[in-house]
Amino acid sequence: MVGIFQRSLRLRTSLRQLSFHGSTSSTDTLSSLVLRGRLFPISSPSVFFSTHRTLQAPNDGPKSLSDTPPPRRPFSRVTEEDLTFFRTLLPGRTITDPDLLESSNVDWLKSVRGSSEVLLRPQTTEEVSQILRYCNSHNLAVNPQGGNTGLVGGSVPVYDEIVLSTALMNNILHFNDVSGILTCQSGCILENLSLYLEERGHIMPLDLGAKGSCQIGGNVATNAGGLRLLRYGSLHGTVLGLEVVLADGRVLDCLSTLRKDNTGYDLKQLFIGSEGTLGVITAVSILCPQKPKSVNVVFLGCETFEQLLKTFQLSKRMLGEILSAYEFLDSECLNLLKTHLKLQNPVSDCPFYIVIETQGSDPNHDEEKLHNFLEEAMASSLVVDGTVATEEGKIKALWSMRERITEALTHDGFTYKYDISLPVERIYQLVTDMRRHLGDRAKSVVGYGHVGDGNLHLNITSPAKNAALLAAIEPFVYEWTAKFQGSISAEHGLGLKKRNYIHYKDLLQPEKHPRNNCSIQEKDRLKVVSIHRLYIVHVCHLCDEYI
Amino acid sequence: MVGIFQRSLRLRTSLRQLSFHGSTSSTDTLSSLVLRGRLFPISSPSVFFSTHRTLQAPNDGPKSLSDTPPPRRPFSRVTEEDLTFFRTLLPGRTITDPDLLESSNVDWLKSVRGSSEVLLRPQTTEEVSQILRYCNSHNLAVNPQGGNTGLVGGSVPVYDEIVLSTALMNNILHFNDVSGILTCQSGCILENLSLYLEERGHIMPLDLGAKGSCQIGGNVATNAGGLRLLRYGSLHGTVLGLEVVLADGRVLDCLSTLRKDNTGYDLKQLFIGSEGTLGVITAVSILCPQKPKSVNVVFLGCETFEQLLKTFQLSKRMLGEILSAYEFLDSECLNLLKTHLKLQNPVSDCPFYIVIETQGSDPNHDEEKLHNFLEEAMASSLVVDGTVATEEGKIKALWSMRERITEALTHDGFTYKYDISLPVERIYQLVTDMRRHLGDRAKSVVGYGHVGDGNLHLNITSPAKNAALLAAIEPFVYEWTAKFQGSISAEHGLGLKKRNYIHYKDLLQPEKHPRNNCSIQEKDRLKVVSIHRLYIVHVCHLCDEYI
Repeated sequence: MVGIFQRSLRLRTSLRQLSFHGSTSSTDTLSSLVLRGRLFPISSPSVFFSTHRTLQAPNDGPKSLSDTPPPRRPFSRVTEEDLTFFRTLLPGRTITDPDLLESSNVDWLKSVRGSSEVLLRPQTTEEVSQILRYCNSHNLAVNPQGGNTGLVGGSVPVYDEIVLSTALMNNILHFNDVSGILTCQSGCILENLSLYLEERGHIMPLDLGAKGSCQIGGNVATNAGGLRLLRYGSLHGTVLGLEVVLADGRVLDCLSTLRKDNTGYDLKQLFIGSEGTLGVITAVSILCPQKPKSVNVVFLGCETFEQLLKTFQLSKRMLGEILSAYEFLDSECLNLLKTHLKLQNPVSDCPFYIVIETQGSDPNHDEEKLHNFLEEAMASSLVVDGTVATEEGKIKALWSMRERITEALTHDGFTYKYDISLPVERIYQLVTDMRRHLGDRAKSVVGYGHVGDGNLHLNITSPAKNAALLAAIEPFVYEWTAKFQGSISAEHGLGLKKRNYIHYKDLLQPEKHPRNNCSIQEKDRLKVVSIHRLYIVHVCHLCDEYI
Repeated sequence: MVGIFQRSLRLRTSLRQLSFHGSTSSTDTLSSLVLRGRLFPISSPSVFFSTHRTLQAPNDGPKSLSDTPPPRRPFSRVTEEDLTFFRTLLPGRTITDPDLLESSNVDWLKSVRGSSEVLLRPQTTEEVSQILRYCNSHNLAVNPQGGNTGLVGGSVPVYDEIVLSTALMNNILHFNDVSGILTCQSGCILENLSLYLEERGHIMPLDLGAKGSCQIGGNVATNAGGLRLLRYGSLHGTVLGLEVVLADGRVLDCLSTLRKDNTGYDLKQLFIGSEGTLGVITAVSILCPQKPKSVNVVFLGCETFEQLLKTFQLSKRMLGEILSAYEFLDSECLNLLKTHLKLQNPVSDCPFYIVIETQGSDPNHDEEKLHNFLEEAMASSLVVDGTVATEEGKIKALWSMRERITEALTHDGFTYKYDISLPVERIYQLVTDMRRHLGDRAKSVVGYGHVGDGNLHLNITSPAKNAALLAAIEPFVYEWTAKFQGSISAEHGLGLKKRNYIHYKDLLQPEKHPRNNCSIQEKDRLKVVSIHRLYIVHVCHLCDEYI
């Protein structure tokens, strides 16, 4: 239980944490940027205040800023005195060797790189609290880091922020096999939790390709979706409690293990998906479903996306409560799997492929439901070919056709990744429109994702980083998404890469703003882009002026 | 679509709304009380500020304050000029006839009564916005009201607050039968939504006894749990979007209809379960499951609560994904149903009864699972008698044994109601301990509730309101719950009646406080009892001093 349940830190608490100089001038946009996912010292509220203010395109028209890092804020540099403090607090766990720091400075995609010189590896909530209290009082910026599997540059430093890794906070604190409620430290790796639970007749309510490295704290901080959301719902429903250390070291204890608790505001919800901007999650309690007695995976080939959607409808109707995943990939994805990972197509070549998983409590019933569904799908020509796996090895092989696409893409070239939520009937139209729009400027334009959740992963590759290609993709992709009232981050988050585009969330009609020569008219286009201690701060879409 | 989707109201937004004079003096406790669920005008932040500060027992020892209404705050009285404004805005929907106001002034249990002289019945978000903007600028207190089915006195005025009813905001705005996402105004009655959805092959993800009167806006505002939470999860998972009017009339548009959206904080979560204290919910979008093709209900008799819990474990294992409810009642509940509602026990007399519901997509499979489960439960002597219903009429009859207990209790006398979350293995122990504790001072002490969610409804009746009995029940029930780390409000909320007891949420060891002669020691027992614009305000348990 270590310090995690100690009550000595339950002090007066505030949620000021992200800091930057307030500004209402459009020319000061760059200097007032907040780096998402980084925890900066708290200064006097009269000088600094917290917000999620986003960077906007300059007035001379939309321009991609994905490649432009925000400027370094005036935080202190780490001194020998600081290192002495950290080494005393975390003997052997204060890392300054550049070789050892390398993997903490670079993201999994190798797309962004920081230059941190210190990696701290606390084991307890108390240590996290002391680190943050010290950094806060010494004006040192901190970058919380989980499994560093994020895809939007949110998990590594931008400059020399101290990396606070939760990797050694990997204790399971409690599991109740009657209620299925697990309580653990935030650094537990998702797959380890799954293995632990499977031995106890349960499973984690989420599953994703990065499970071998990603940590539950990072999953919660980014509100990870993954493959089973269709069946078990989002973390807003399954996370029952959180313990969080705020930027000044105070500990917020919302670590409830009750399935129902309606006393006061459900404050922990704010931290789910806040990407580390509100505090460092140190412990999680989560509701875990029973382990299914039977799991089946089907891989199907389909002629059109329309048929793929009709098959989805059919699967919901005929598989009902045992349907646990409905995923898709297009033929371009399959080509990448073949080319770069030497995976074989388990069915005949088709424009689209579906991966369906069922989880149930009676193998015979599940098999019968699946059989009836497949018979109907084939009879009505919705699918043209398919294969079913019921044993673990083959199940894994079929799942790898979906889970290893990200890996295949990294071999194809520099990848521009987009994670879009759309009304389900629209999700593939973006891929075809993008393909047409880019023509031969892109190497590959592929689409895959979670049909059941209306979540498309659109990926575009190029032999190398290509500014012209990027300019062709953005803001096209964001405008397209906004036009159909989608979200530009379904599950990946905003991180460093998407931080500029939160305003596209539901920007429908950009026009001239009366002030600052912006084109947005007053009444229609003031968006909530930022929250300052629960005050919503509005910024004009174009000129970045506070309203 | 009326005004609900109009974007003209998306103005600068803040979340200041509950107002009272700030105070750190323990003697000023009563005058600084916040009435939960009431929306008061926003004054200058320097004078008024928002909080959930709770009322504490005075220094001379714990004392029940349930019956002591908080004092009326210095809000304005409604004038003829105000009425003229309202009548112009809401012609024919500004009610001042005392007879028509009666049902809005008294709660369903007839346990609390207000004296409002004005009932406003807006039809659109725009009207709600104008009402609140006017009341805010004229210092008039407002009591938002949905179906008025709450059990904690949170839905009726305490004094003369203006009642803002959402009853006429009952339009369904959109339903997507591919995604199952419903968008509607907040005044839609739960049962009407269910009927609408059933015709379209879907169901609401929640169901509760009050469904014929309660409104979806109230369900969300109180984070209603109900009978299907076990299967479909809480509203934090199923509500996808909210539109809320803040106390000063500004409209916060979080009415997303996407299953996944990770752009920025999930602000709508704060309103779920906030009991109307943060704003008036005007529209809701919610994810609705497919309508099951087969529903079965089983009513079982059980000798001990331990066997009832073992039967729960067995049902989870053998019914798996088709289990949709696992409810219980004790023999005292059944006696009340017999005595007051003339309902017949469908099985032989037992100390405990279980209501199990299954929902599935294949009637044959469900029947077989149920058969195997019942055979095993009988063979292992976990249950002693039972009956199964598969057709609608009999299903309703069996459900009424569970759903009509609240009604039976109202006939038994004045009812003291408690809604407790506990680790599931503890939930009935509180009933037996309370029965022993009260002896013959109570008329009936009964327990029923949602075993699957660890949620006990403890009810105690008396021929009439009885101060001595209440003093024997409270704080006993809260201390008992705190001792076992339960919650004093699982799903009913705090309202007027439980507002004083939020600090019992996890109060484990009340001791003397060093200041003010209180008995609580500093480091161990300062609880988060209150939130002030996301600052957590701590108050000593006993002396009510801000820490």
